[in-house]
Amino acid sequence: MDLVNQQCRLAARPVGLPKPSDWRYTEEPVPEPAAGEALVKTLLVSLDPAMRGWMSDARSYIPPVGVGEVMRALAAGEVVASNDPSLSPGDLVTGLLGVQRYAVAPAAALQKVDTTLAPLPVYLSTLGMTGMTAYFGLLDIGKPVTGETVVVSGAAGAVGGVVGQLAKLKDCRAVGIAGGAEKCAYIVEELGFDAAIDYKSQDVAASLPEHCPQGIDVYFDNVGGEILDAALARLARQARVVICGAISQYNATGAMAGPSNYMSLLINHASMTGFVISDYLAQYAEGLREMAGWYAEGKLSSRGDYATGLENFHEALLRLFSGENTGKLVLEVA
Amino acid sequence: MDLVNQQCRLAARPVGLPKPSDWRYTEEPVPEPAAGEALVKTLLVSLDPAMRGWMSDARSYIPPVGVGEVMRALAAGEVVASNDPSLSPGDLVTGLLGVQRYAVAPAAALQKVDTTLAPLPVYLSTLGMTGMTAYFGLLDIGKPVTGETVVVSGAAGAVGGVVGQLAKLKDCRAVGIAGGAEKCAYIVEELGFDAAIDYKSQDVAASLPEHCPQGIDVYFDNVGGEILDAALARLARQARVVICGAISQYNATGAMAGPSNYMSLLINHASMTGFVISDYLAQYAEGLREMAGWYAEGKLSSRGDYATGLENFHEALLRLFSGENTGKLVLEVA
Repeated sequence: MDLVNQQCRLAARPVGLPKPSDWRYTEEPVPEPAAGEALVKTLLVSLDPAMRGWMSDARSYIPPVGVGEVMRALAAGEVVASNDPSLSPGDLVTGLLGVQRYAVAPAAALQKVDTTLAPLPVYLSTLGMTGMTAYFGLLDIGKPVTGETVVVSGAAGAVGGVVGQLAKLKDCRAVGIAGGAEKCAYIVEELGFDAAIDYKSQDVAASLPEHCPQGIDVYFDNVGGEILDAALARLARQARVVICGAISQYNATGAMAGPSNYMSLLINHASMTGFVISDYLAQYAEGLREMAGWYAEGKLSSRGDYATGLENFHEALLRLFSGENTGKLVLEVA
Repeated sequence: MDLVNQQCRLAARPVGLPKPSDWRYTEEPVPEPAAGEALVKTLLVSLDPAMRGWMSDARSYIPPVGVGEVMRALAAGEVVASNDPSLSPGDLVTGLLGVQRYAVAPAAALQKVDTTLAPLPVYLSTLGMTGMTAYFGLLDIGKPVTGETVVVSGAAGAVGGVVGQLAKLKDCRAVGIAGGAEKCAYIVEELGFDAAIDYKSQDVAASLPEHCPQGIDVYFDNVGGEILDAALARLARQARVVICGAISQYNATGAMAGPSNYMSLLINHASMTGFVISDYLAQYAEGLREMAGWYAEGKLSSRGDYATGLENFHEALLRLFSGENTGKLVLEVA
């Protein structure tokens, strides 16, 4: 085999928004897979807000990407060589392949996917970590009950869009907060949210009472900052706040803004709970079966947002932070 | 009856720390109790950080004290006249009597106490709302498990001191954060905490790792601000943060400081839950029986901190916010 790998490596820890010089592209020969490993050709790289955290050396739920290492990323690819009986060339898989053209990984760390059930990109979105993040965060932490009001920020993003659809599946009122008229139309018309608040043209704090007359029972937060504070101010009694992300704060160079309305938790006997998807490995397969069932019934739709070319990784990633992205952002590599 | 009542009324909503002009003293004849009511002579007024919130017209768990109204306060007193069969002159009771020498109240809103079981002040502290706040907050929300580490701020205060003793009763490691060497000695030597951190002379964030080598499993917060942030940074996996108060922020004139380390909830799959004691009315009697049992066994001690004279209400109240108070702060009125 004389395949050449191309890789995007972390050249420096970003300060604030990542910049082109934080990355370095390298080429090297593709190694042979050792026993128990497979060689995978990357097809689609998942671009996720969590990647910003992986670039930082602040204490977190997993070690950061080391400077000089290939950037960590979830991806979907095709097995081109296998040294493990569980995988064969041509198999399609997902896993932490990284931002590179080829990856060698233990077969046990790869998930085989069946594209007769759903197209490959869906295994990075609705039936991937993205959808399962919405699933466990909303259902296990948010615990929505029929008739309750669920509010989600970043509602036109990959996770937020699934949260709203799951809220509707649970017979709740789903209110999404998103930036811009187009995203607001998308979540109401395509995803079936009951209402949308455009944080770019509306005052979120002033709009929540109209859309949540009984208060917010479940608030699923992807953004942090002022929107989190606005939601806290409108909690219903016994509300559950799910902390999934804080994209408005990920590129802050000073201290993160804490929610100054957190005493609303006291007033309302409410809770705020954080999680990451890796907390749910034990329940993952069972949850995925339920999500696959809903997907097959046509109850979970998702728009894909595609960029192309490994060399465009940096610009594509920034779309997450600029508010340009709608739905699941994916980089097509091959 | 020609008794004269003396009353401390809210004259103005305080901005920042309450000042003498925020109060107005009045005298008026004591009314007769109507059917179902009793007339109570106030003996001891409980001084509590929550009173600062009651003076503010921000949305909260109960309506604020109206400007011109008698200041709301828990108190203990003696029935001097009763128009209800459940109470007789000479009975000792607790209830929301207010900052005044006499109060007329519905008998149903008064709790008769038995001073053969515990001295009267204990019914405002360990066996009053104070102790029960510690009880429900720690046991129902914090859910400490044998061997876990419980950290409490405001540990030398009335609630905090009970929290630490309950943590020891549950076979946990109890670490208190308090201001000054004397308070730190009090909680370790008199209350049995395992360790104390003096936030006035020590860096709390730097000291927590030493005292909580496995991280914090339960953090019971009475203070907010920087100490809450320091504790968040040291949470163990699946930690429970109990939001009971935020005394460092109650006199802030700007926005309250939110906990900028709240994303530690995400990293650690941890939760932060608020409550007030009125959330637990249904379970109150059962909890009180358990607390009374522990008190009778000598397992819950508490220092009283006394001021004297209705006219000294303002100065006494400020002791809560200046850090001068240790244990339960009570104003002796008669």
